[in-house]
Amino acid sequence: MRRIRITLAYDGTGFHGWHVPRVLQDTLSEVEGSPVHVTASGRTDAGVHALAQTAAFDLDNPIPPENLLRALNRLLPAEIRILSAAEAAPEFHPRYDAMGKTYEYRIYRGPVCSPFERNYVYHHPYPLNTEVMKAMAGLFEGQHDFSAFAAADEADAMGRSKVRTIFQSELESSGERLTYRVRGSGFLKHMVRNIVGTLIEAGKGNLSREQMLAFLEAGGKRKAGPRAPASGLFLMSVDYPAHPA
Amino acid sequence: MRRIRITLAYDGTGFHGWHVPRVLQDTLSEVEGSPVHVTASGRTDAGVHALAQTAAFDLDNPIPPENLLRALNRLLPAEIRILSAAEAAPEFHPRYDAMGKTYEYRIYRGPVCSPFERNYVYHHPYPLNTEVMKAMAGLFEGQHDFSAFAAADEADAMGRSKVRTIFQSELESSGERLTYRVRGSGFLKHMVRNIVGTLIEAGKGNLSREQMLAFLEAGGKRKAGPRAPASGLFLMSVDYPAHPA
Repeated sequence: MRRIRITLAYDGTGFHGWHVPRVLQDTLSEVEGSPVHVTASGRTDAGVHALAQTAAFDLDNPIPPENLLRALNRLLPAEIRILSAAEAAPEFHPRYDAMGKTYEYRIYRGPVCSPFERNYVYHHPYPLNTEVMKAMAGLFEGQHDFSAFAAADEADAMGRSKVRTIFQSELESSGERLTYRVRGSGFLKHMVRNIVGTLIEAGKGNLSREQMLAFLEAGGKRKAGPRAPASGLFLMSVDYPAHPA
Repeated sequence: MRRIRITLAYDGTGFHGWHVPRVLQDTLSEVEGSPVHVTASGRTDAGVHALAQTAAFDLDNPIPPENLLRALNRLLPAEIRILSAAEAAPEFHPRYDAMGKTYEYRIYRGPVCSPFERNYVYHHPYPLNTEVMKAMAGLFEGQHDFSAFAAADEADAMGRSKVRTIFQSELESSGERLTYRVRGSGFLKHMVRNIVGTLIEAGKGNLSREQMLAFLEAGGKRKAGPRAPASGLFLMSVDYPAHPA
């Protein structure tokens, strides 16, 4: 038995929930001739995209990784592409070993959204104070209790810490595009989309700096949000410790 | 009655045949409250995209063009976007008045095609002699009988001239991308896709310069091709005489 680690990209538009690994599992089971279990760094919501998700699985099949990559890309739907495949340490675990993840959220502010981008941005052609949003984005950096930014079902789950560390939280404005980029130790369900929705509220002038800080205080009961649409969200990369030499 | 001229972009992926104008017609009829007939510069095949198609129609409704644009973009599916709308001369006709059209055909040559580009390129990860293709592309410029590059049903239609004038026919290579750009007085059904398919055959070494020239001779009976997939083809623009001052 060998453990294989892959990175994959997918267009989340047509996928509901945790559909991508299931498709991957079915395809790998075909290659292996028996059921294969795929573990990923985490789930992405329906409609959320990935430029570089990490996953792993065990195979008996001695197929070289580069041939496996080609075989998978032949068998998988074009919405999912394997970008790399390599042998991994037998104990490698995409979720437990992840040190951090980077997400990008893309907003298009122009009056008319290109039909070719409709599934890959959040089209928001209304006034926003981007200077306020940029300043607010920085408030998320550091260690915070993100209960106010968790999905309703996860926020209510007892006993699981909602504390996460955000290494970088930045909003960039370029012409008619706003890009929010966040790198952190881990993310709660819907957390990035709730952060973006809250930043947009701030950009509309509906939220003061004090109200934003209150959301980030432990034990806060008020929910932040609303949640921004899935289409604008991309999982950009998952960080792991450097491979042992 | 006033004539309105619009430019529109559409993602042809989900559209079959002449579906776009029909959707447009239904939406305009809703706005007008009675049937509206839409004329475009020409048809695009199922799966072919447009960055700037031109169409026109008559309305009794006195709605200003900029409000009409907003109303249409609210009512139309996001795959179709109106880019501009303006009053036109009552005799303006998008097909008869067109002086030329520009198409672009996009080929991606890398081993793995991004899931986000799968519907917007032709993925061709096999060896091609691009120098040969570039030289061959130039042969199409000028006035030729394009019978060999017409769709089978159109090629057999008697009495309609297959002579067209190509102003520019160029292949550009940049990294893993090949872009074929062609501007001409008009195009037969499937003509651009048949030209690209034939250029690819030349790039594979299956077609000599003499064979290519034979396709461009009047009265040639042999069909060129095969036809390249629709996904890579974009209608870039339609040219009209400058508006009278």
